[in-house]
Amino acid sequence: MKEKNMTENTAKEIEANGHFARQENEFSTPFGTAVGQLPVEAGKYRLLWSAACPWATRSAIALELLGLTDVISIGKADPMRPVKEDADWAFTLDDGDVDPVLGIKYVSDAYLKADPNYATRPTVPAIVDIESGKVVNNDYFKLTNYFENEWQAFQSTDAPELYPQELRADIDALNQIIFSDVNNGVYKAGFAQSQWAYEKAYNQLFARLDWLEERLSKQRFLFGDRLTDADIRLYTTLARFDAAYYDKFRANKKRIRDYENLWNYARDLYSIPAFKNNTDFHAIRVHYHQSGHLSGTAKLFSVLPLGPDEELWTTPNNRAEKFGPVTNLVTQPGEK
Amino acid sequence: MKEKNMTENTAKEIEANGHFARQENEFSTPFGTAVGQLPVEAGKYRLLWSAACPWATRSAIALELLGLTDVISIGKADPMRPVKEDADWAFTLDDGDVDPVLGIKYVSDAYLKADPNYATRPTVPAIVDIESGKVVNNDYFKLTNYFENEWQAFQSTDAPELYPQELRADIDALNQIIFSDVNNGVYKAGFAQSQWAYEKAYNQLFARLDWLEERLSKQRFLFGDRLTDADIRLYTTLARFDAAYYDKFRANKKRIRDYENLWNYARDLYSIPAFKNNTDFHAIRVHYHQSGHLSGTAKLFSVLPLGPDEELWTTPNNRAEKFGPVTNLVTQPGEK
Repeated sequence: MKEKNMTENTAKEIEANGHFARQENEFSTPFGTAVGQLPVEAGKYRLLWSAACPWATRSAIALELLGLTDVISIGKADPMRPVKEDADWAFTLDDGDVDPVLGIKYVSDAYLKADPNYATRPTVPAIVDIESGKVVNNDYFKLTNYFENEWQAFQSTDAPELYPQELRADIDALNQIIFSDVNNGVYKAGFAQSQWAYEKAYNQLFARLDWLEERLSKQRFLFGDRLTDADIRLYTTLARFDAAYYDKFRANKKRIRDYENLWNYARDLYSIPAFKNNTDFHAIRVHYHQSGHLSGTAKLFSVLPLGPDEELWTTPNNRAEKFGPVTNLVTQPGEK
Repeated sequence: MKEKNMTENTAKEIEANGHFARQENEFSTPFGTAVGQLPVEAGKYRLLWSAACPWATRSAIALELLGLTDVISIGKADPMRPVKEDADWAFTLDDGDVDPVLGIKYVSDAYLKADPNYATRPTVPAIVDIESGKVVNNDYFKLTNYFENEWQAFQSTDAPELYPQELRADIDALNQIIFSDVNNGVYKAGFAQSQWAYEKAYNQLFARLDWLEERLSKQRFLFGDRLTDADIRLYTTLARFDAAYYDKFRANKKRIRDYENLWNYARDLYSIPAFKNNTDFHAIRVHYHQSGHLSGTAKLFSVLPLGPDEELWTTPNNRAEKFGPVTNLVTQPGEK
């Protein structure tokens, strides 16, 4: 039964016109103090993520930036999917192939504990209640906002304010644009099952990257001289672009390296430990090029591409020189 | 029977260690005046090629450069292979899907006329004797040399000497290197069926491109200020690199656009009509990304990538300014 349920792939997320429509998240109860909300308590939850996944990596970066990694524990799934055509995530990086805290082999185990009829893709990020072993939240869109907003009591004293009250409406609006055109835009291009759907996504993606390139020609980050939640979201797609989306998802008009400002900006972020520590280019390449689950993106004899060169990410960038210091980080990018 | 014979693909060209070993050419009788050689006569032969194929495109470029297109007629096969997993070429660009001179639908028809037991890939370029309808030469390695050398009586008066006597040994030696590491090197990377074979081909390819980049930093063409046969051979791979080999064959360390001298050199050649007229980027993208025959390089819902931007090929290059005129061309590159 479980095997049957869990071999679902993205096929059902394709509309009649070939457009990829990402599935809704089933577990979206917010964190907070109101009745019915998820209580904010240290040691109660475990974040399940994978270094391959751009949606989950947002949460891992935010937790580290905010100093919450001792408060919410972290379980890391293998970037290589367990079974061909299977959309599950496995704990094959851990001893005995089992997550040491939850004692499960697959991310799907935690989904099925929460809902025995769960039949859509078992996605990361997933917040699991450690005691019950059940997924309680898999809302990749809002999770970082909860960490930023609802978990402030547990954040480190020098944690940057990534989602400041006065900017929230603007951040939310930009996040929606980044989601639709960029984060999910690359998937709409890569998973398209019609030329029309592909070209629409491709044109939308590169028009938006041009727009972001222009915005980042005038300021260090998306909202000026302070790092915000929006930068984390844009970054996780930029970090995967040249190594996976350009070729595997046919997003091949330009690489990020070909955009002056986006490329300097991406390396500026990469020089911040919370970003760098949660960026694993090998995991990214393995996942997108060798993992069998990506519908339609069949493997080429499981060969792993050697390029592009990871060391390019540590070449100097011009952002500090051009725009001055980051106002909401104690340690400046590249200083540690 | 024919269908059976002709559905061969590259599978039998893979060695036990996963290395791609290109098949030998069956028809290699040279052109010349000796007994048993193919007689050099105007109107006797037809070159079958496809704009997709780098090996065949050499011959098309050479014929036009030498002014031989009225002497040897040309039949053009569709860059899209006729049947999934089939390695044949079809005349679906012609009225009635039939080559107007030979009256055949597939390139394989001419191979089977020459050898009813022909069972390897029916490749282009193929020289067909028009009267018998049989393939008489498919030696992609030597064909341009025959056009240059044996067909001089029919060349135009201003035809460049592409294979001058005093350089032949050097051209042959360089051609062998370019063949092994670059022309066939990309295929060895793309068709590799083991990580070892892929990495070997990848490293060999990019080491050779670095070496060629250095050589072309000092002179306009591979043999100084005159265009030779070797330039045609290197060009046909360079023209396909960013649009096909970089992503589809995982040759993704660098694009040709990322090499200063190779990229200027490639555009310099492209500005010569015989090169430009026989370079069809759309055909290249269709062939490598949508044609089903390429073993293991399965289609992604038949979507055709939009990038990279073809117009980049007509941006100015610095070769004339840097190295001065081409000595063996009456019309300088870019002048027409």
